[in-house]
Amino acid sequence: MPQTTPELVQLLDLEQIELGLFRGHQPRTVMQRTFGGQVLAQALMAAGRTVGDDRECHSLNAYFLLPGSNSSPIIYDVEDLRDGRAFSQRRIVARQDGQRKFVMSASFHVAERGLDHGDRQPSDVPPPEDCRPLHEVMKAKGGGSSPFFHEFDALDVRYASSHDPGEGAGAELKVWVRTSGPLPDDQLLHRAVLAYLSDLTLLSVSTVSHGVAFYGSKLQMASIDHNMRFHRPVRADQWLLFDQVSPSASQALGFATGRLFQDGQLVASCSQEGLIRLPQD
Amino acid sequence: MPQTTPELVQLLDLEQIELGLFRGHQPRTVMQRTFGGQVLAQALMAAGRTVGDDRECHSLNAYFLLPGSNSSPIIYDVEDLRDGRAFSQRRIVARQDGQRKFVMSASFHVAERGLDHGDRQPSDVPPPEDCRPLHEVMKAKGGGSSPFFHEFDALDVRYASSHDPGEGAGAELKVWVRTSGPLPDDQLLHRAVLAYLSDLTLLSVSTVSHGVAFYGSKLQMASIDHNMRFHRPVRADQWLLFDQVSPSASQALGFATGRLFQDGQLVASCSQEGLIRLPQD
Repeated sequence: MPQTTPELVQLLDLEQIELGLFRGHQPRTVMQRTFGGQVLAQALMAAGRTVGDDRECHSLNAYFLLPGSNSSPIIYDVEDLRDGRAFSQRRIVARQDGQRKFVMSASFHVAERGLDHGDRQPSDVPPPEDCRPLHEVMKAKGGGSSPFFHEFDALDVRYASSHDPGEGAGAELKVWVRTSGPLPDDQLLHRAVLAYLSDLTLLSVSTVSHGVAFYGSKLQMASIDHNMRFHRPVRADQWLLFDQVSPSASQALGFATGRLFQDGQLVASCSQEGLIRLPQD
Repeated sequence: MPQTTPELVQLLDLEQIELGLFRGHQPRTVMQRTFGGQVLAQALMAAGRTVGDDRECHSLNAYFLLPGSNSSPIIYDVEDLRDGRAFSQRRIVARQDGQRKFVMSASFHVAERGLDHGDRQPSDVPPPEDCRPLHEVMKAKGGGSSPFFHEFDALDVRYASSHDPGEGAGAELKVWVRTSGPLPDDQLLHRAVLAYLSDLTLLSVSTVSHGVAFYGSKLQMASIDHNMRFHRPVRADQWLLFDQVSPSASQALGFATGRLFQDGQLVASCSQEGLIRLPQD
């Protein structure tokens, strides 16, 4: 995976084959399957490049149909669903090796004035400078393999929950997150990076209250769907508080929701369902 | 709209034109546009009829592209995205009068054992017998037109928030809801009725903290997207506590999330974004 911010920007800079048809290249990685956040972010970049400059993505919904391979590029085929005065909707189908692997719909909106309110940022969180990098916390807990987390060094992720993971914790996880370096001023890119980073820790929140180590090798975990709303302009290269909870897990499906705050404001919300299979006895 | 539960069941009993192609008929109504919940529920019924009996819908995501008309039937065209051992995904396109009005994706899953937890049902809510019908509360507040609410007499909806709507209230709304009469034992139908009822009050929650009357005629309101996850088996003809909040409103978009509880258990979660335009001065 991209280990620097410029590499991440490059990963999201798709090759245009034809109007509405894009090729996304693969990063070097030790991961066996394509990272879901990469596909979300590349698909959003593809859709955004077919939409007028006057509108920003406010929502996306995606299904992961089949695992992606890291050895072939992914083709993003964008279908125009609608172009109205205030809204545009797109459908994106991601194909690889002759198979449809991923589908997403996204909606874009021209900014308008209207009612304004937002959840307040939780105040009981230490500042990012006082929080340890997530991969150090995971390594200390013996959970997950550290190479996995170094895959994501294009991001600076700090563990911000007030208790040790897995020890009497509820089904919640707070992290601070931003890119390691600066990003160009392109709101589409910033929102795509939010989609990228939102898939990193969200599903694991469903396992926290069960004392199961994050990314424990004994669990079969896979994102099934991912939903995201962007409420306000955001910079992915400035600190974001990612407040994640898991309202439910049942029938091998974990469900988690997240709120992304910046400078005290709610900038995005997301939710995900994923498969969490326990080891067979 | 259906004013009795048998009429609601009939509305969701689609005519099959061909494998994967269905016609949904329209109810009698004074409403000017098709009720979003009807389209969500009919689309889910269409998708569910193309999927094996061994799997239930666990998630759906929809976009409302154009307002529906109540004078022509709606055609639901179901595309098979994938049929795996444990999951099936479908895409549903709703067409009417030569236009694509609505798109939805839905995922179905064979029940499996796994981690289990769920949010607890709020305990500070009076029982449904002690709560007044929602349309009476609205009428007393002078908000909305009562004919609108009598359109939904196939449902029994009780106002369960502890304060008067619009008076010092946060952006939240609790209602008890169930069908007025019994439903047959068909889990697909029960989940479709949940989709139907989930669209009735959700968007209006975004207006509560602004002291704007629900369904006030001066606001232009329209559902843009709708997302739903079904966590556990449910009966839509038994009381459900629908706990709704609005985490954000910005740029003429209201965002609301809801949790549906039954017998103390979290049975479904949903979220919606919708357009809320203030009157032009």
